[in-house]
Amino acid sequence: MSYPLTEPPARGFSTAEFVTRTETAQQQMQIQGIDALLLMSEPEVRYFTGFQTLFWQSPTRPWFVFVPSQGKPVALIPEIGADLMRRTWIDDVRTWRAPAPHDDGISLLTELLSPLAARGDTLGILKGHETSLRMPLGDWEQLRSSLTGLDITDATALMQGLRMVKSDAEIEKLQHICTIGSAAFAQVPEFGTQGAPLEAVFREFRRTALALGADDAPYLVGAAAPGGYADVISPPSRRPLQAGDILMMDTGCTWDGYYCDFDRNWAIGYADDQARRAYDTLWRATQAGIDAARPGNTCRDLYQAMTTVLNEMDTSGGDVGRLGHGLGMQLTEQPSHATFDNTVLKENMVLTIEPSLSYGNGLMMVHEEDIVIGKHAASLLTERAPPQLPVI
Amino acid sequence: MSYPLTEPPARGFSTAEFVTRTETAQQQMQIQGIDALLLMSEPEVRYFTGFQTLFWQSPTRPWFVFVPSQGKPVALIPEIGADLMRRTWIDDVRTWRAPAPHDDGISLLTELLSPLAARGDTLGILKGHETSLRMPLGDWEQLRSSLTGLDITDATALMQGLRMVKSDAEIEKLQHICTIGSAAFAQVPEFGTQGAPLEAVFREFRRTALALGADDAPYLVGAAAPGGYADVISPPSRRPLQAGDILMMDTGCTWDGYYCDFDRNWAIGYADDQARRAYDTLWRATQAGIDAARPGNTCRDLYQAMTTVLNEMDTSGGDVGRLGHGLGMQLTEQPSHATFDNTVLKENMVLTIEPSLSYGNGLMMVHEEDIVIGKHAASLLTERAPPQLPVI
Repeated sequence: MSYPLTEPPARGFSTAEFVTRTETAQQQMQIQGIDALLLMSEPEVRYFTGFQTLFWQSPTRPWFVFVPSQGKPVALIPEIGADLMRRTWIDDVRTWRAPAPHDDGISLLTELLSPLAARGDTLGILKGHETSLRMPLGDWEQLRSSLTGLDITDATALMQGLRMVKSDAEIEKLQHICTIGSAAFAQVPEFGTQGAPLEAVFREFRRTALALGADDAPYLVGAAAPGGYADVISPPSRRPLQAGDILMMDTGCTWDGYYCDFDRNWAIGYADDQARRAYDTLWRATQAGIDAARPGNTCRDLYQAMTTVLNEMDTSGGDVGRLGHGLGMQLTEQPSHATFDNTVLKENMVLTIEPSLSYGNGLMMVHEEDIVIGKHAASLLTERAPPQLPVI
Repeated sequence: MSYPLTEPPARGFSTAEFVTRTETAQQQMQIQGIDALLLMSEPEVRYFTGFQTLFWQSPTRPWFVFVPSQGKPVALIPEIGADLMRRTWIDDVRTWRAPAPHDDGISLLTELLSPLAARGDTLGILKGHETSLRMPLGDWEQLRSSLTGLDITDATALMQGLRMVKSDAEIEKLQHICTIGSAAFAQVPEFGTQGAPLEAVFREFRRTALALGADDAPYLVGAAAPGGYADVISPPSRRPLQAGDILMMDTGCTWDGYYCDFDRNWAIGYADDQARRAYDTLWRATQAGIDAARPGNTCRDLYQAMTTVLNEMDTSGGDVGRLGHGLGMQLTEQPSHATFDNTVLKENMVLTIEPSLSYGNGLMMVHEEDIVIGKHAASLLTERAPPQLPVI
């Protein structure tokens, strides 16, 4: 049997938190002229209801939450989720017997939305950057055409604005999973040894994270190759670790539906000068990012602070698109540390700092830490990586 | 360190398998008057390219695969995936520096699709039951309006028809992960004991599945409550198991990107007569489903075979919507064992048999096994649950 690393915080959230989330959304809706929201993606449904289940991994059934201009949200969901949804703070739970290919919630939605359509109301949905339509496009088109009076607007910025700033209870959960992730990485030298197949190292990392109290370690990617790696999103091979390899593991572990997302590098046996220099440059770029992560600065400022250091060694300009992002109920959330993102940092944003360096002949190295923005500066949620490339 | 249960099959697929998949799709496209497919969901991209990464867990970036009327598919993907995609059988890999909120692949898609629009070609996309649009709806609307000559049609049935029948190499992977899942369930009596918090039992199950060779155990739901449970999709509580509880665990473990999906029930200490009778009825309903799973029968036939047995005890009619489904790269796939699904069973379909029984005062019990349809009858991929409710 396994034991948690630290006493975990309480699971779930108080009803007060859902009231605050809903009222804050409704204030923003009023400002933006949005009469109601229709949401269907897992984090948004969970944000307003507290409904948490892994059942979302089944793509079969759509789920909907409607946020009116005032009052509690309404859940329109498959009957299989009724018992769990009725245990949340939501009162109005409407269900259908799903799957129902010819009417998967469409009649229920039509009934709910028809009065809004008759009034010519504005309905906010998520159709912007980083969103998906988690219902069949054909069903959406059918619904849309039966509610022609409805003015559909994009509420992506509204929703992401709400979710970017975390509550204290959310930060507790994020701190807890980052602590577990840090402890799991600290044990890698025990099993990430010369001769161990990378696949076995990955498996043991997951088992370690679970033993330390993670609910799961759903995201684990990485690489190991002589002198450095060229790809950072692969599943592991069966190749045994060899002296001179650089090993990188990047994990998203979860606790109570919140993610950590960070990585670590090690040299197996020894490291050449180029790898040591890349690591040192990345470590200092990470530090520059953390130091720049203050309220009032923008994501673009963070990107530039990191890039200034990276340019000491990397003249390729890089191509991963950004140097970190938001973190919370999803492995990656808005904002993005990139030239295009002028989001102003605020207290209680939780972010990854993730510089990426191209070097040598097609090699790359990545570093990542997780932070929370405080009143005046950022605090680490992860245990900071050592300043020199650790050797196993 | 952990050791696999059995020598696993080879990872990945031969190029010949991707050639066959593509050519079979192209034959179906020709029959249905579809000139090309545009796909963007993880299983479809993997089906045609072999591109496998957990990076899909990040919602930030869209990914696209285009299947022309002849020749190899074309990948249009974020630069971060270029190295991995270039190691597949795909030659034509077009990338952009993502995320790019104002042009996340839209220019590349427009360039690719404009000649088709000019010819008035028919483009198949997935917009039917059990699908999502894994790109921003706003981007799709923009693309659609810039390619007005293009005739968009729903290729859901085509795609699901291809994926429902598994290749021998896919069945090997599915058999392997079902064997691991069966072995993991066999160990539950060692840690699913009276006094163990359900959360700890779940954690230890995941660690066991990993030790036995699963790549991961991403889906694990269940319940434990006196005499039976009322909900089958919840995360675990911290409540310790008590004598008289019925414990149910339902898991989707993965190996090389393929899922098992089945469950097991146990009584803690003792079981009352009602629970034993429910278990017996479900076990026989499962058997009736397995026996009816022959080429030529339909999913509706399976549903009815199971329902006939369930009706001995359950007069509620149930409400989970179906009694099993397809299984493969996704935890749940088409078809559905339901009255609405007249899919004719064929050799090499992999299915779950999943009857659900309502009994007593708001209780329910579920059973699930995984099978593959053979020439004349079905074979179990899972080790059949014992015919009497096991007591821990």
